[in-house]
Amino acid sequence: MRTCYTGEVSRGHLDQTVSLFGWVHRRRDHGGVIFIDLRDRAGLAQIVVDPDNVQAFEIAEKLRNEFCIRVSGLVRLRPEGTVNPELASGEVEVLCREIEILNPSVTPPFQLDDDNLSETTRLTHRVLDLRRPFMQRNLMLRYRVAMEVRKYLDQLGFIDIETPMLTKSTPEGARDYLVPSRVNAGQFYALPQSPQLFKQMLMVSGFDRYYQITKCFRDEDLRADRQPEFTQIDCETSFLSEVEIREIFEGMIRHVFGVAQQVELPAQFPTMTWDEAMRRYGSDKPDLRVKLEFTDISDLMRDVEFKVFSAPANDPASRVVALRVPGGAAMPRSEIDAYTKFVSIYGAKGLAYIKVNQAAAIPDGLQSPIVKNIHVDALRQLIERTGAVDGDLIFFGADKTKVVNDAMGALRVKIGHSDFGKQHGLFEKGWKPLWVIDFPMFEYDEEEGRYTAAHHPFTSPKDGHEDYLESDPGRALAKAYDMVLNGWEVGGGSVRIHRADVQSKVFRALNIDAEEARNKFGFLLDALQYGAPPHGGVAFGLDRLVTMMAGADSIRDVIAFPKTQRAQCLLTQAPSFVDEKQLRELHIRLRNVEAKPAA
Amino acid sequence: MRTCYTGEVSRGHLDQTVSLFGWVHRRRDHGGVIFIDLRDRAGLAQIVVDPDNVQAFEIAEKLRNEFCIRVSGLVRLRPEGTVNPELASGEVEVLCREIEILNPSVTPPFQLDDDNLSETTRLTHRVLDLRRPFMQRNLMLRYRVAMEVRKYLDQLGFIDIETPMLTKSTPEGARDYLVPSRVNAGQFYALPQSPQLFKQMLMVSGFDRYYQITKCFRDEDLRADRQPEFTQIDCETSFLSEVEIREIFEGMIRHVFGVAQQVELPAQFPTMTWDEAMRRYGSDKPDLRVKLEFTDISDLMRDVEFKVFSAPANDPASRVVALRVPGGAAMPRSEIDAYTKFVSIYGAKGLAYIKVNQAAAIPDGLQSPIVKNIHVDALRQLIERTGAVDGDLIFFGADKTKVVNDAMGALRVKIGHSDFGKQHGLFEKGWKPLWVIDFPMFEYDEEEGRYTAAHHPFTSPKDGHEDYLESDPGRALAKAYDMVLNGWEVGGGSVRIHRADVQSKVFRALNIDAEEARNKFGFLLDALQYGAPPHGGVAFGLDRLVTMMAGADSIRDVIAFPKTQRAQCLLTQAPSFVDEKQLRELHIRLRNVEAKPAA
Repeated sequence: MRTCYTGEVSRGHLDQTVSLFGWVHRRRDHGGVIFIDLRDRAGLAQIVVDPDNVQAFEIAEKLRNEFCIRVSGLVRLRPEGTVNPELASGEVEVLCREIEILNPSVTPPFQLDDDNLSETTRLTHRVLDLRRPFMQRNLMLRYRVAMEVRKYLDQLGFIDIETPMLTKSTPEGARDYLVPSRVNAGQFYALPQSPQLFKQMLMVSGFDRYYQITKCFRDEDLRADRQPEFTQIDCETSFLSEVEIREIFEGMIRHVFGVAQQVELPAQFPTMTWDEAMRRYGSDKPDLRVKLEFTDISDLMRDVEFKVFSAPANDPASRVVALRVPGGAAMPRSEIDAYTKFVSIYGAKGLAYIKVNQAAAIPDGLQSPIVKNIHVDALRQLIERTGAVDGDLIFFGADKTKVVNDAMGALRVKIGHSDFGKQHGLFEKGWKPLWVIDFPMFEYDEEEGRYTAAHHPFTSPKDGHEDYLESDPGRALAKAYDMVLNGWEVGGGSVRIHRADVQSKVFRALNIDAEEARNKFGFLLDALQYGAPPHGGVAFGLDRLVTMMAGADSIRDVIAFPKTQRAQCLLTQAPSFVDEKQLRELHIRLRNVEAKPAA
Repeated sequence: MRTCYTGEVSRGHLDQTVSLFGWVHRRRDHGGVIFIDLRDRAGLAQIVVDPDNVQAFEIAEKLRNEFCIRVSGLVRLRPEGTVNPELASGEVEVLCREIEILNPSVTPPFQLDDDNLSETTRLTHRVLDLRRPFMQRNLMLRYRVAMEVRKYLDQLGFIDIETPMLTKSTPEGARDYLVPSRVNAGQFYALPQSPQLFKQMLMVSGFDRYYQITKCFRDEDLRADRQPEFTQIDCETSFLSEVEIREIFEGMIRHVFGVAQQVELPAQFPTMTWDEAMRRYGSDKPDLRVKLEFTDISDLMRDVEFKVFSAPANDPASRVVALRVPGGAAMPRSEIDAYTKFVSIYGAKGLAYIKVNQAAAIPDGLQSPIVKNIHVDALRQLIERTGAVDGDLIFFGADKTKVVNDAMGALRVKIGHSDFGKQHGLFEKGWKPLWVIDFPMFEYDEEEGRYTAAHHPFTSPKDGHEDYLESDPGRALAKAYDMVLNGWEVGGGSVRIHRADVQSKVFRALNIDAEEARNKFGFLLDALQYGAPPHGGVAFGLDRLVTMMAGADSIRDVIAFPKTQRAQCLLTQAPSFVDEKQLRELHIRLRNVEAKPAA
């Protein structure tokens, strides 16, 4: 019935009669003729209704925006000067022969091409919001990405195995979403935070290569860009080394970008140890589009007068770094002041800087109140090590290591993305993937006074680091890796522990005693006893990946029916109050909340 | 590293050195040589360890079942007489050069090839149970089916769009699984029973062709073969007729059977109206492999003396049917008695029958106590209409229509599948798909004294049946269709209502008043106002479909981690008691259940 999608009508259909379905995007009456921009998921086509065609014209006069119609007509070239190069169908138009109104529409609450809608309006009227070409493109891109992931993995023998949504609650890390059981009074399922343990068990079962594109759930306070349910590309494989695993999955991302985005990513993604990433960028997900990096100068500042530098330089838990901004001496004072404010968000108490007017004239060529408190030798080495030249600006971070990394890492990105940064070549457009590897096994939690897992407790230590698990946990590195793209962690994974004895050692290092380990992870420990294969894997956040590829601002723009930051669906009004009868069947009652009638 | 899967070693590798990973399926010591059946997901290969290879032999002596190992060695032909035609690798064996134990195994709780394990044992030790070749094959088949569905739909422009898991509770039909909201005190999400409303809204949004392979949830008492969470192949399309929709999806099933099963299904599936299916088979999902059908004889039995027949024959809510069993006169008395018992399960009060000794000699050639109470004319017409010949048996059902359909429909299938049926050609092997169409819009619920939706309340009436919605709801037929395969409903769907006014009429026929409709489905009614396109779709039960294709007895055999009939996961011990703190955060407390410590 339908010749093709409306948006696909083209020169190829010239002089043919086409039959199209779609929505009235706009109707214009011009010189006695009615023009309809007809829209469907593929785009727009221009329909011309001539008054000579009395029957069609009468119907066309009734059309309003968002009416759903069927049109048939003859494809012809647009008159010269009216070609629209922005549309695939822009060279042609359809001379209407027949129109049928399939369903009229009341007046929509907003114009579909209004780009200034509030999020509340958009989510309340999501059905209409999704008609907007931007949202149509985004969800189609999302599909294409997911499908290309599947095709790539299928070809390599990965099989999609569904793991349960109703699982066991193991409180740790994020908060679980719970589901009361009716049949088992007083007991609860948890929605999965990830299929981690199930996929490991599937490896023990011998499925060898597993993947799943699946929903995961975390009941966390929703930061700007999180959702209670999110989608993970979850993968696991047996018998491969860390390097082999990374090769497979950077190949996957390369494939997806190539097919869905016509973008060629590097033939081999660079790797960088976690330690190097922190040293050079203060971040374990450095945005390599920004052509700025830290210079470590702690060793130079140990004996300077300037206490703000010498104190942290002499503290092993602190660091002093320089961030050279090429051409930065031209940066207006107001901008520097704004950056000083900016780094304070991350706990920095100030933002020292030096303008390099003449690099060769030390100290006079260096402009800054701090210069006089730093001896000439240190200044000379600073200039040398940073490679600063005339006209540069050097920012400094000097504080606890975490504060310096957070504040100066954020500053680095901020400057790179600023107008100044773009004008001065500090930002290089494009896609800059890398692997960050050799993460530490553990992070020391100052508050709790114990080590916690940096990745998760099933991550394998690097070869030779097993002994540190007991002797010096902070020194143990893991076979863990993150794929970082333009400053975002798009995926992460690790080689897992496949031996029960090593797993027990890691639990001990985490202060998880044998009983607790058995209660929470007994089924995994059991599984490891039966000839578990060496295995490892990775998980990618599909929402984030597609958001980046779509150039969207929020993951809500790549999710059909997202929740707000209060975890509500404005379209369907979920969550809602429910009948008392339902609660009774589930053996629960409300606590300190007045029961309200079910909506 | 790995040359190929263990199960794939073949003649093609002759005289090559292969490197294999897998599990010790069995170890035999024979004539001073050690034979290992090495297993992976692709199957078995025989490894031969010669005592001359001292190092390998020493390791091989330590091997026990389920040890995970790496083996390298030379592929050679098996000695004559030891070829195993049941294995893909059965012509060859691998002369071991090197063995490495990757992970030992404690003694498994059962032999993997033990076919008499209890379900409790299997589900408790699911990780090992999944190693069994049968389970490996089943989950790989499941994957292949799902992937071929995706490929087929992709090619036709269907796109997978994820709909929410945390949705709004709309109590009706099955019970919802609820999820308490922490942020919105006292309120609950529901896990979706199906994405029905979301997929309809996606059509209104203009996505045109949608699919999703997704989890659905129903908190029902679990019959033998149901799961709290199950997987649906959910599809919807706009602008197509009922016939066009069916064509697409029978094409999908044909494709899947062709690729995943090498089975060619009919080029066009037969269609049968619901009315005809009930008349001929007493079922809306007839098993067409069974070569038996009902003959309606109500009209013949209205004036016979035999009250058991004449009473229902004269009641419009009842029916009298004959079920001719070719060759059935030879059926032993004990079998007939068993069937009499069998039909009583369905409420039949007895099972009258006639043995046709001589079809031409009426009444003397007919052997049955009931013959004398049925006049000769009725008997003659009975024989003629059923086409009974000498040696046949005729069973009778005479009762309320529902009882007759249920009892005689079940009897028909039972006889067909019996040894007798198979020996007498009453059963034809193979795959017998059909579409059952023209379902009634409504069913009358005697208990509640009102009509309920036969399919769901969003189903469109057939053209010309709109008026019945008010005047005679029981007469209204729907644009609804089920795909039936060998007696199972594998999929079902309908053309949906796309006009708000028709939807309102259907709600009225269902006694859903305007306020209730707005509360429950306001967002759908709103959506229909904005130029909703004509649309329809279908949903297939993936679990059931794969179970049938795998020749498995239970859907639990095609699900990696299923729940028991008490909705428990025996592997992970879900559901479980949770911390009081978790409940407090969710604003709920237990009711009439003693709080137990979290497991």
